Amino acid sequence: MTGLEVHLRSVGTALPGPAIDNAALARRFGLGDVWEQWVETFLGTRTRHLSVDLNTGEVDGWLADLGTLAGQRALAAAGVAAGDVDLLVLATSSPDQLMPATVNVIADRLGIDGIPTFQLQSGCSGALQALDLARQLLLGGRHRTALVLGGDVSAKQWDLTIDPRSVSQGDLVSAAMFGDGIGAAVLGVGAEATPGAVVLREVRVRLGGLGRPSGHVVEWFGIADRDRLHGGVAEDYKAIEELVPGLAEQVLGELLDDVGWKRSEIDYLLPPQLSGRMTAKIVEQLAVEGAEEVTVVPDTANTGNALPFFQLERLLPRLAAGERAVAVAIESSKWIRSAFALEKAAAP
Amino acid sequence: MTGLEVHLRSVGTALPGPAIDNAALARRFGLGDVWEQWVETFLGTRTRHLSVDLNTGEVDGWLADLGTLAGQRALAAAGVAAGDVDLLVLATSSPDQLMPATVNVIADRLGIDGIPTFQLQSGCSGALQALDLARQLLLGGRHRTALVLGGDVSAKQWDLTIDPRSVSQGDLVSAAMFGDGIGAAVLGVGAEATPGAVVLREVRVRLGGLGRPSGHVVEWFGIADRDRLHGGVAEDYKAIEELVPGLAEQVLGELLDDVGWKRSEIDYLLPPQLSGRMTAKIVEQLAVEGAEEVTVVPDTANTGNALPFFQLERLLPRLAAGERAVAVAIESSKWIRSAFALEKAAAP
Repeated sequence: MTGLEVHLRSVGTALPGPAIDNAALARRFGLGDVWEQWVETFLGTRTRHLSVDLNTGEVDGWLADLGTLAGQRALAAAGVAAGDVDLLVLATSSPDQLMPATVNVIADRLGIDGIPTFQLQSGCSGALQALDLARQLLLGGRHRTALVLGGDVSAKQWDLTIDPRSVSQGDLVSAAMFGDGIGAAVLGVGAEATPGAVVLREVRVRLGGLGRPSGHVVEWFGIADRDRLHGGVAEDYKAIEELVPGLAEQVLGELLDDVGWKRSEIDYLLPPQLSGRMTAKIVEQLAVEGAEEVTVVPDTANTGNALPFFQLERLLPRLAAGERAVAVAIESSKWIRSAFALEKAAAP
Repeated sequence: MTGLEVHLRSVGTALPGPAIDNAALARRFGLGDVWEQWVETFLGTRTRHLSVDLNTGEVDGWLADLGTLAGQRALAAAGVAAGDVDLLVLATSSPDQLMPATVNVIADRLGIDGIPTFQLQSGCSGALQALDLARQLLLGGRHRTALVLGGDVSAKQWDLTIDPRSVSQGDLVSAAMFGDGIGAAVLGVGAEATPGAVVLREVRVRLGGLGRPSGHVVEWFGIADRDRLHGGVAEDYKAIEELVPGLAEQVLGELLDDVGWKRSEIDYLLPPQLSGRMTAKIVEQLAVEGAEEVTVVPDTANTGNALPFFQLERLLPRLAAGERAVAVAIESSKWIRSAFALEKAAAP
């Protein structure tokens, strides 16, 4: 008997506004060439897109706007009508509102109704948590076609009233390192060994935060916080630098055990991408020398819940029949390690 | 061959602070006996618990605090060690922070690690979305024991600096209608027809918001909102009153079709509980005359993502072998209808 497996049928993405280069960012914060060059060489980011105009403060696309666009693109690429989607999942750390959940606003705009929807509150492993959830539900047999989204927008976190000279070094790093965007993927169930299908072989997500302080904190404020509203985002880059490479190595090993692949059999590696330097360190530790690295941070920076979708968008046209890819993502707010394995079935 | 089914092994709950009666609430807002009596007779709520002291503004328990307590109680009641939980799900509209996800903070405090966790951003159908997710993943065979939580705290939404006389009528209704709390349930897989097991036969959750404006909006604010921070919660009670009874009737019918039960075979009904008057209207429309209603709003008010757990906590000691219960919950922020069916297997 031929079993069922989960196929990645398409990917679509959406970015807000124009590409903002390091020179524009440096100008906005009154910083010079040295900082600009440091961003490019150390962080490895040349441009990013933001949901807010740093000069006017105007918001250029909330998560629901971008998600609708990415969803439409993924559906069109898969040749799937909105009405055929029977499961919708969104992963984000930055919903537009607490209620309604942004996933349901996106559903409304896509014309999707009458199905279960899930919105995961998640960080840099969110795309993988959403893919895991969709894959499990598809394999369970209750659903046939899932639209899975992951993305973040930072419009509410940019305090443009602050004196540029008073911005802390850490906040400047975050400003250069993160970008906004959203990605979407259509997953479907299909028969084993469907010629040419891109099979989502396994997704592994594991919390590993026991006893470890958060490496990344994002606060939200309600009306009661009016007088105590202050910087809402904090990163512990030291902890991130210390822990992420080891967690990436750990989950890659676990994933390969799950699927029975050797490191030498990996054709493409989609690594965690917090910065160029750290990615290089991680990739070195992962020791998959034969694999080609799929990198997006130079163009989009770290887009959080969206990043693996941008990587997948670059991977899919390149992935040849019989080739294998693995992705690794690490969430530093409470240290979640995650990875997935993708394989393109042989042509007919 | 005996198939697998999902058993509800225990429920635990947690409430912050003391019970606050209508008289105390009326005093705080400078309102008199008439309002107090209106709350009791119209809303049907006598007391509620809040995560904030309305006089001092002191916070008495965040979601992670209450969730840890409810989780410990549910685990103890099931005789399950934290280390045996292999799936953790939390549903809430009011996470303590955006990052880390509160579910992972609760995991840390319970000593849970190395497993997948999911936090759903959800409203009044959140408990059912979380139960649905856990049930599907358990039936998929990857997990054996799930701890499922649902809850809300409103501490960030209480603006205690405002002049009581300037509070709008709608906000006063919300103040009287909602309460804080969290519930937890342990679900496990078991063999069909396990004597005395409480079987979670089916969970049905369907988005029904296409083209419908939100009936409930909750905003969150970031640092960029410092100057535009204003009332963050809005309810459209007219829309809620119009739509909820029909949606409840619809999803009950769908659920009974799913499980093949007749209305006359339902022993207990756990209805949506936005207010006493509306619950009465809904229950009348559901037309399950033989069923005993399980009501908690008099004591806890509407606790959002927690409410079905409080209902389950009252139901479990009463549910006899062979008896059946159905719960219905409606989410009004984007109109999600949800229901589940529970059945206690015959004793040995």
